[in-house]
Amino acid sequence: MSVETLRWIGGRPGHVRMIDQTRLPLERVMVDIATVDAMHDAIKRLVVRGAPAIGVAAAFGVLLDVQHRDERDREDVLGRVRESAARLASARPTAVNLFWALERMVARATRDHASGAGILDGLFEEARAIFEADREICRRIGVEGAQLLRDGATVLTHCNAGALATADYGTALAPIYVAKDQGKRIAVFADETRPLLQGARLTAWELREAGIDVTLITDNMAGRVMFEGRIDAVFVGADRIARNGDVANKIGTYSVAVLAREHGIPFYVCAPLSTFDAKIEHGDQIPIEERGEEEVTCGLGRRTAPEGVRVYNPAFDVTPARLVTAIVTEAGLIERPTRARVDAVLRRGGVL
Amino acid sequence: MSVETLRWIGGRPGHVRMIDQTRLPLERVMVDIATVDAMHDAIKRLVVRGAPAIGVAAAFGVLLDVQHRDERDREDVLGRVRESAARLASARPTAVNLFWALERMVARATRDHASGAGILDGLFEEARAIFEADREICRRIGVEGAQLLRDGATVLTHCNAGALATADYGTALAPIYVAKDQGKRIAVFADETRPLLQGARLTAWELREAGIDVTLITDNMAGRVMFEGRIDAVFVGADRIARNGDVANKIGTYSVAVLAREHGIPFYVCAPLSTFDAKIEHGDQIPIEERGEEEVTCGLGRRTAPEGVRVYNPAFDVTPARLVTAIVTEAGLIERPTRARVDAVLRRGGVL
Repeated sequence: MSVETLRWIGGRPGHVRMIDQTRLPLERVMVDIATVDAMHDAIKRLVVRGAPAIGVAAAFGVLLDVQHRDERDREDVLGRVRESAARLASARPTAVNLFWALERMVARATRDHASGAGILDGLFEEARAIFEADREICRRIGVEGAQLLRDGATVLTHCNAGALATADYGTALAPIYVAKDQGKRIAVFADETRPLLQGARLTAWELREAGIDVTLITDNMAGRVMFEGRIDAVFVGADRIARNGDVANKIGTYSVAVLAREHGIPFYVCAPLSTFDAKIEHGDQIPIEERGEEEVTCGLGRRTAPEGVRVYNPAFDVTPARLVTAIVTEAGLIERPTRARVDAVLRRGGVL
Repeated sequence: MSVETLRWIGGRPGHVRMIDQTRLPLERVMVDIATVDAMHDAIKRLVVRGAPAIGVAAAFGVLLDVQHRDERDREDVLGRVRESAARLASARPTAVNLFWALERMVARATRDHASGAGILDGLFEEARAIFEADREICRRIGVEGAQLLRDGATVLTHCNAGALATADYGTALAPIYVAKDQGKRIAVFADETRPLLQGARLTAWELREAGIDVTLITDNMAGRVMFEGRIDAVFVGADRIARNGDVANKIGTYSVAVLAREHGIPFYVCAPLSTFDAKIEHGDQIPIEERGEEEVTCGLGRRTAPEGVRVYNPAFDVTPARLVTAIVTEAGLIERPTRARVDAVLRRGGVL
């Protein structure tokens, strides 16, 4: 991809370089992140966002402090890993990839705890593995999902689950990129995705960069374009998937799913196995982040609502499994997801 | 109401004074409109908007030029009425109230055509009647609709079909104002209504001014708040209603109607009989205005989408009659609208 969401710069010690997604598409600014606090802030402020990318960012984030510790002090190194992980885990509550990546890092540190140097070696290896796996997983999701797209198809997507949400091809957009590589002509309608306009700012931008036919609409036009018969399939990402197949994703996803069902349009959720939370049985147990009211009242550069008006700003919603045609994972499709079907794929992927 | 959307200033000649709705809620600026071209521009730019208010504005608009003609030249006066009406009719294509008001003005001029002075007298009387009737009709819609609201109810509304869309209480918001006058506690969730944010800028503002409990959400949150069980009823306005009960209204209304049906929430459309188009059998015959892409890409004060991205920007959509629980008119409710039920109310109201 021409977009490089984030990567590790230098060796050991090193730092993280990422594209500042709050400034796209008007400015293409790279920022360097060298401390755990700066990474916490970058995740919280959505400088980096998208569930898989947050996982990679968190794994890199753990390295930032611990790489400067005295390798001879095993206990200090291990303690700093746990502190960094706890700090980073508090940045955002909904995307489970954040916790998944941090748990992997802490587990690795605990496993390699014979020496401080051993812990550090292990952590660098683990972070690299998470980063590399994300690229491989995106490709596999793309290949699985591309089978669902015929030549000439038009896809509707919501928010950004593309290259900018991952270290590579993305999740929801991966099938589109792979289908294009296969020579299929695919067109996309991108919901702008209020309040923070990830669809307008990020999805429309990265699809154009990739030479894909994209049309921007406001969120409330999705129903109309479906009514007009223009949409063949919906592809979205996910921030956390419950054991029964309920999907937490960007606010508005649920409405799109209801509309897709109303129009007989298949609704596909693309997500790596790391987005499944085996400890959560139903979607109603997934914590939903509420964000500040200024995102709604003046998120776009100037105030557009009266002073003092009350605002409700949930950042995510939950789409019940019954509205999901299939979940597209790197271990294959989960069609009409149920607890048993989810478990079968998690087992196949070695998660259960 | 504390909001005065538009009124006629002075006698004959006079001019129109209106609140500039493009500048609300940050600035409360009154503008004076003294020519047909200025009125055409004000309607086109949405300085005045809302189907009933556009009807009143158009009726006043016809007076602006013709009031300066030589009363002794009957043919000239009649010709200018027709020219003014044709010019004003081209301002916006969807709201039928515009054409309805202009047709009333032209018909009146034609009827009173014995002398130029007679035509002018008739036109001033007709415009005043349209303005006064709008106030009375809003009150009656409010009384009819308030019966549908229990004490403690929470309503979701889309766009602005309130005081600012009419000469008085509004259509969709009239039941809320009347219910409040009756001592009922009513809360409202207002969709912000992209791209032009009439919900955030106008509905949230006028409800707050009126002391009504209002919470602002982005359009894509409507499904979530319904899912959470917070909404008892949806009330929206209309820009044109077909003979079979299909409703053209602000883009996004259709999605709200589908979501309301999914959640078993009644979906009410509030509209005067002047919003019905007896010549249109089905909603798919209603022309849907497409507006400029800059409303989507930089409608909020700064550019938020990549340069050159394609945009689809339909200003309205059509909600099929089957999704409408009832249409609330000044002549009573049309429950589960069908052609026969619409016709019965149009006959009762003297329209057919």
